[in-house]
Amino acid sequence: MGQLADARPAARKREREILDAAAEIFERHGYANSSVQQIADAVGLLKGSLYYYIESKEDLLFRVLADVHDGARGIIEQVTKLDAPPIGRLRQYVRCHIEYNASRLTQIAVYHHDGKMLSEDRQAAIHQQRKVYESFLIALIQEAQANREIDPALSPRLLTNGILGAINWIYTWYKPGGTVSPAQLGEVYGSVLAEGVLGIAAPDQAPTI
Amino acid sequence: MGQLADARPAARKREREILDAAAEIFERHGYANSSVQQIADAVGLLKGSLYYYIESKEDLLFRVLADVHDGARGIIEQVTKLDAPPIGRLRQYVRCHIEYNASRLTQIAVYHHDGKMLSEDRQAAIHQQRKVYESFLIALIQEAQANREIDPALSPRLLTNGILGAINWIYTWYKPGGTVSPAQLGEVYGSVLAEGVLGIAAPDQAPTI
Repeated sequence: MGQLADARPAARKREREILDAAAEIFERHGYANSSVQQIADAVGLLKGSLYYYIESKEDLLFRVLADVHDGARGIIEQVTKLDAPPIGRLRQYVRCHIEYNASRLTQIAVYHHDGKMLSEDRQAAIHQQRKVYESFLIALIQEAQANREIDPALSPRLLTNGILGAINWIYTWYKPGGTVSPAQLGEVYGSVLAEGVLGIAAPDQAPTI
Repeated sequence: MGQLADARPAARKREREILDAAAEIFERHGYANSSVQQIADAVGLLKGSLYYYIESKEDLLFRVLADVHDGARGIIEQVTKLDAPPIGRLRQYVRCHIEYNASRLTQIAVYHHDGKMLSEDRQAAIHQQRKVYESFLIALIQEAQANREIDPALSPRLLTNGILGAINWIYTWYKPGGTVSPAQLGEVYGSVLAEGVLGIAAPDQAPTI
């Protein structure tokens, strides 16, 4: 699977099942306490057959993590093609990222808990993918600064880390199917980022004549 | 140590060294891959002597995590005694929490990575401590809402999770001793929370006469 060896639909579907099962098991037991046997059992394969798709347990972890970034490329595309000023695209970014994370809570938990169990080379590869994603957000903030929508004195990197923190944290507390949809959550966080809690309250404080 | 058996200063100092060494080793290798022997080596004790202070490896993990909350009680005290409107105390909370986290990055990494390795009873005990801390922030937001500083339509819990996310995330990227001090970081995050990126930019956009 390191090379996505088999492009036939049935094989791709099987690979997806294996990645999802691996993420579930890593998340439940921790990578160190999980075995290839457990993952084989979860997808109904003999352990030997599972090795047709993967090289090792670490290979599986790497694929789960790389897959998180692969999917996130869609966010960049969606935000980039939006016809809106930078701050509008920034809000769209927050919405898209929250919806994306909310749809992959298990994989994202594994991403953050077990990433350092990868070999150094593979950690570097994942780190490189993350940099591409972060750089997109930094560039978007810089564009908003050039457009005077964001104070140029604010550090784009500090803002980026704060935004990603608030969003990435969702995997620790968000329960899908509850009273708040990912879209609503995206609206709230986008509004606080843009206007602040005081800005959102302002309309109520304006004198009504 | 589960009972803090020995209150003499030398013993307390030793306990602190043991907790710090345990946090370092858990953070570097992960709890599952760490041994009591490694921790004994790090503090220059025979393994048998270390068991004078602890009951088990899990006991150490529990103490490291409980210690994070014990220290955080100082934040609540500091914010509570501040003579300021709720939004001012909220900003102070952000500053204090960031300074606190920045001073304990290792312990906080262990808190978030290895908490689920505890027994269910002990996870529940840590969860209970966290609830007290979160409830304080929720109550502060509700006070700001009653004071019309924050729109009462915003969910205090969603806001709380976003604020804690941005702050807790710091352990993943913040490097102490760099160009940004914890106090500066607290200022930036507090300002964005209160005024939003648009609000902070506003003074520059006002016409200068």
